[in-house]
Amino acid sequence: MRSFASDNTAGVHPEVMQALSRANTGHVAAYGQDEFTARACAKLGEHFGAQSEAFFVFNGTAANVLGLETLTRPYGAVLCASSAHIENDECGAPERFLGCKLITRDTPNGKLTPELLETAMLGVGVEHHVQPQAVSISQTTEFGTVYRPSEIRRLADFAHGHGMKLHMDGARLANAAAALGLPLAALTTDVGVDVLSFGGAKNGLMYGEAVVFFDPKLAANFKYARKQGMQLASKMRFIAAQFEALLSNDLWLKSAMHANRLAGLLAKRLEGVAGVQLTQKVEANALFLRLPPALIAKLLKTHRFYVWNEAQNEVRWMLSFDSTEEDVEGLLADITRQNQ
Amino acid sequence: MRSFASDNTAGVHPEVMQALSRANTGHVAAYGQDEFTARACAKLGEHFGAQSEAFFVFNGTAANVLGLETLTRPYGAVLCASSAHIENDECGAPERFLGCKLITRDTPNGKLTPELLETAMLGVGVEHHVQPQAVSISQTTEFGTVYRPSEIRRLADFAHGHGMKLHMDGARLANAAAALGLPLAALTTDVGVDVLSFGGAKNGLMYGEAVVFFDPKLAANFKYARKQGMQLASKMRFIAAQFEALLSNDLWLKSAMHANRLAGLLAKRLEGVAGVQLTQKVEANALFLRLPPALIAKLLKTHRFYVWNEAQNEVRWMLSFDSTEEDVEGLLADITRQNQ
Amino acid sequence: MRSFASDNTAGVHPEVMQALSRANTGHVAAYGQDEFTARACAKLGEHFGAQSEAFFVFNGTAANVLGLETLTRPYGAVLCASSAHIENDECGAPERFLGCKLITRDTPNGKLTPELLETAMLGVGVEHHVQPQAVSISQTTEFGTVYRPSEIRRLADFAHGHGMKLHMDGARLANAAAALGLPLAALTTDVGVDVLSFGGAKNGLMYGEAVVFFDPKLAANFKYARKQGMQLASKMRFIAAQFEALLSNDLWLKSAMHANRLAGLLAKRLEGVAGVQLTQKVEANALFLRLPPALIAKLLKTHRFYVWNEAQNEVRWMLSFDSTEEDVEGLLADITRQNQ
Amino acid sequence: MRSFASDNTAGVHPEVMQALSRANTGHVAAYGQDEFTARACAKLGEHFGAQSEAFFVFNGTAANVLGLETLTRPYGAVLCASSAHIENDECGAPERFLGCKLITRDTPNGKLTPELLETAMLGVGVEHHVQPQAVSISQTTEFGTVYRPSEIRRLADFAHGHGMKLHMDGARLANAAAALGLPLAALTTDVGVDVLSFGGAKNGLMYGEAVVFFDPKLAANFKYARKQGMQLASKMRFIAAQFEALLSNDLWLKSAMHANRLAGLLAKRLEGVAGVQLTQKVEANALFLRLPPALIAKLLKTHRFYVWNEAQNEVRWMLSFDSTEEDVEGLLADITRQNQ
Repeated sequence: MRSFASDNTAGVHPEVMQALSRANTGHVAAYGQDEFTARACAKLGEHFGAQSEAFFVFNGTAANVLGLETLTRPYGAVLCASSAHIENDECGAPERFLGCKLITRDTPNGKLTPELLETAMLGVGVEHHVQPQAVSISQTTEFGTVYRPSEIRRLADFAHGHGMKLHMDGARLANAAAALGLPLAALTTDVGVDVLSFGGAKNGLMYGEAVVFFDPKLAANFKYARKQGMQLASKMRFIAAQFEALLSNDLWLKSAMHANRLAGLLAKRLEGVAGVQLTQKVEANALFLRLPPALIAKLLKTHRFYVWNEAQNEVRWMLSFDSTEEDVEGLLADITRQNQ
Repeated sequence: MRSFASDNTAGVHPEVMQALSRANTGHVAAYGQDEFTARACAKLGEHFGAQSEAFFVFNGTAANVLGLETLTRPYGAVLCASSAHIENDECGAPERFLGCKLITRDTPNGKLTPELLETAMLGVGVEHHVQPQAVSISQTTEFGTVYRPSEIRRLADFAHGHGMKLHMDGARLANAAAALGLPLAALTTDVGVDVLSFGGAKNGLMYGEAVVFFDPKLAANFKYARKQGMQLASKMRFIAAQFEALLSNDLWLKSAMHANRLAGLLAKRLEGVAGVQLTQKVEANALFLRLPPALIAKLLKTHRFYVWNEAQNEVRWMLSFDSTEEDVEGLLADITRQNQ
Repeated sequence: MRSFASDNTAGVHPEVMQALSRANTGHVAAYGQDEFTARACAKLGEHFGAQSEAFFVFNGTAANVLGLETLTRPYGAVLCASSAHIENDECGAPERFLGCKLITRDTPNGKLTPELLETAMLGVGVEHHVQPQAVSISQTTEFGTVYRPSEIRRLADFAHGHGMKLHMDGARLANAAAALGLPLAALTTDVGVDVLSFGGAKNGLMYGEAVVFFDPKLAANFKYARKQGMQLASKMRFIAAQFEALLSNDLWLKSAMHANRLAGLLAKRLEGVAGVQLTQKVEANALFLRLPPALIAKLLKTHRFYVWNEAQNEVRWMLSFDSTEEDVEGLLADITRQNQ
Repeated sequence: MRSFASDNTAGVHPEVMQALSRANTGHVAAYGQDEFTARACAKLGEHFGAQSEAFFVFNGTAANVLGLETLTRPYGAVLCASSAHIENDECGAPERFLGCKLITRDTPNGKLTPELLETAMLGVGVEHHVQPQAVSISQTTEFGTVYRPSEIRRLADFAHGHGMKLHMDGARLANAAAALGLPLAALTTDVGVDVLSFGGAKNGLMYGEAVVFFDPKLAANFKYARKQGMQLASKMRFIAAQFEALLSNDLWLKSAMHANRLAGLLAKRLEGVAGVQLTQKVEANALFLRLPPALIAKLLKTHRFYVWNEAQNEVRWMLSFDSTEEDVEGLLADITRQNQ
């Protein structure tokens, strides 16, 4: 069954698979003391700047939590959208591991603004209240929308002006950069992000995520936090080889553009279809839309996707690097058929 | 450079690599709701019994820590050998994540006994002291020695008799079973182990470890602990496919036997070599031996291995599924040459 | 300067002070193995029932956090009002110590209802989301309102029906019981509360709070959690002696009734005063009211109290066991004078 | 029954009790924003120097754990004697709250030396191992012995030379200073201590301990850690008033000298008594001694004390500020009588 459930129901990009095979030769030092890791880190440096420092972990939850751990102390708070992955989909890992509270703000489209965060500053300096130490944003957001560089810069300035740091959950940063036609640095390095979770698994990797620090001081003790955080891979070369492949020959960009393009195509083809109503702008590879409940029920028999908000009859459809025009047309055909 | 540093400097077994390729087809549900995972769990059930329940995580530290978390509360203690991986090589992850203290006992060969643990019971019931809740043993031990089934059973009885559970760090359980010519269950299911970390990466997998519970009650809420513990793989099928391959066609056994055999060969060939003194019995795939410091220095130029105890001139040599007789002969030749 | 800031700006009730002096004689066993503690626990048993089991800790934050710890595992969630003390005023201690997330609901008056909590059950059984394990209510609420027994029973039934437990932050339980003219058990033991923080410091004690369990199984290992939670008093007799005094001769009730009565008096005298508007019903010893900002500024020069919501010009006035009619009249006179 | 079990079986010094009564007047701001707290902190400044900054907490475990928290990150380690209170008698609170491992060293008399700690530096910089961040010593030690200033200075230099900080558990610092005839600063401020737990409860207070920082940077965020650590007293004035009394009129010194003197007297009178053998030098207010088991059993019928090491027939006798010559003579008489 073809899936629109998430970009992680897809498999591994063939170029990544080949990179894994190529890396599978002979003995190399474990735990990242190998040439594959050195090369992959160098690649990340090409994209994120010479000042940046990158570390690989196994998955996105770990990247978020361990990255945020460098920015916070347990009496701190992390400010995020109420739709944030760290708030909803990590089973409390941030609270457990950081000790911190997440302070959330409702948003129409998953995007924070300095204005939304101002009231969270009221308890600063008062020991009864958690102390805001980091702002965390998701790029793309969990609603598939995309922060512009100027929006990120404003949040960075706000954060830094209040003694906080800016964290980005970039599980789909590639899709955001592809959507805006910008290099990865334009959305991170150049606009004040302090720590980034740079996602791989949602863009064609088998596993692996990079935590990228834009200030070497923040990275200084991360290797200990990663090990204690149960995220140091022994056969690191295999994460590294995947990232090297992803960041070579624009694979990251081509894959993200492909997914974005199909999402746009699907959105366009749905215009004017009776009963179908987009609830978010389609800016990257996700669609959020309201459908008649009967249609949802029927579509779920032949397609895999999430009902995002049952009370609102809202569903989410994600497109992947390996989604095809046939997938899109098949879904559209089913909608037409069922809608009759 | 060929390596005797660890069985994780080796790559991925070709059969495992093929299984990864085969699994890379189409869309499947994420987070373990897929057929690959179901099949791999069924395979684990064949080996560990119908009562057992298995969950995949990314690495051995996580398997140990999250497995132990099901057995303990933060005011508890985990009893282990002072040589245990959880004590020495996990950067304090057990303390951090469990909240517990590790109570260690020195052993001559890495093997705990009930007798060694008796004094650890003195504080039971006294609130000033941590309360022993689990015994953790490593099979094979960190010194390459192997617990016999009767030794494990005695420890299980001791643990259960004191209201504790028995945990096994089985990063190299395959090597132990191969050494004794016993099925995996004979060292776990049948002798009272409650929770097992069943290792893959040290026996030819790319990544992945299984936490196996022998009592469904212990497993009841593990899925939440795994997710919060940052160890839920989105593309789970790729861990599962590796374990399915490992547990099919006796691959686990053949690989372990191979490594063990080469370790035995190396040990045998070292008999009578001047200045070379084994410090532990060679029972599985590891050798511990004392060498003249000058010889150590010379060998390190052409071989990769750990100096285990610098003050004692003791080194560790590990053999892997992909070590070769040429590796062994090469090392022996270098010893002979350098020793002259 | 007389204070309406909180019932903890008051000192110690003279009868409690005498009890402290009487307890200061000779040597007694430390850490609660003394007769004072036994007697005080027996007193608590008289009020809360023979099945109950009580433990003393130093303060209310600890009582709440350690009590909740017995009800939760780190991947759990505690459901509470967004006005709850555990959410706002404990600097993230619950998240830090429990590992749990707090899931909050806005309420008009600080009181939860089952209806408000229903949507919090949506993620039950799904490992990506924290799992609700406890409902926590405050009696009196942080807005000075009072749960009726039937309201608590409904919440207990809801909690138990969903596999959760009911926790009560009873920092001001005495005021609630006094307001309703009911014994303490009618609001706890008899209506399904599982764990109670029974406050002392806000009702005339120097320090000390009791954690009361209504099910001995929940209490079984609490002594370890208390010690590890840094809350085991060495000279326990001095907390115990205070509680014994509080629970003897209806001191708890008389003190609470006094504070409640003065709050009611103040509320009544404010009726019809221009510009003064109560924002919550006055049911116990707190008043919440909106005042002209200029009046707030003037009153703060001669009285100590909190501006609860600056944007709303809302203030909180608390009455204590040692507040006097003169305090009330003095405040009223100042209002009249300033209001002219 | 008179007790030699611990200096916390004693009650409250009459001067402290009077201070508590004097503080019980009127309304004062809660949570330490009061004049009593300001005065007590100033007193601590007189003793520990103008650079020092002090915070009150409820008990010694909390003082140790929260003080150490300012010096460590979770992947760190605290080096201490294997006899340390933080290792043995805090039910794992340091591990739970800091996330750190305690690395212990056996000592003949409870006193660490730089030489004992050198091997603990072997894993520095290696991510698999916890990173030493603090050395913690107890003054007096848990064996009643006393560090000389030069010994502390050597440990401070060692710690600082390795990027660590020096923590002192000064639950009985007063007894140490009294024993050496030195001001408190000579054992702390002047010899490189970074953070001190300054004990009150073992020297005549009802409750309360001070965490003293000798570098304001370490203290900068302690107020949040204390609140989150569940150790912020609402009626802080009553802890403060006790410390003010303790540090006025040499009360701390007189009480400590008294206890020390009686311990010395008891030791002297035991010289030559058959079967009685001191196992530690009596330097402050504790005696450790080996007795015939039958004598131990008999003495326990009329005196309260701890059997320190049952296998060794070793007992501990502590003298308090309120111990009397009659207590000493009574014990001696019983020994003589039972010994016959």
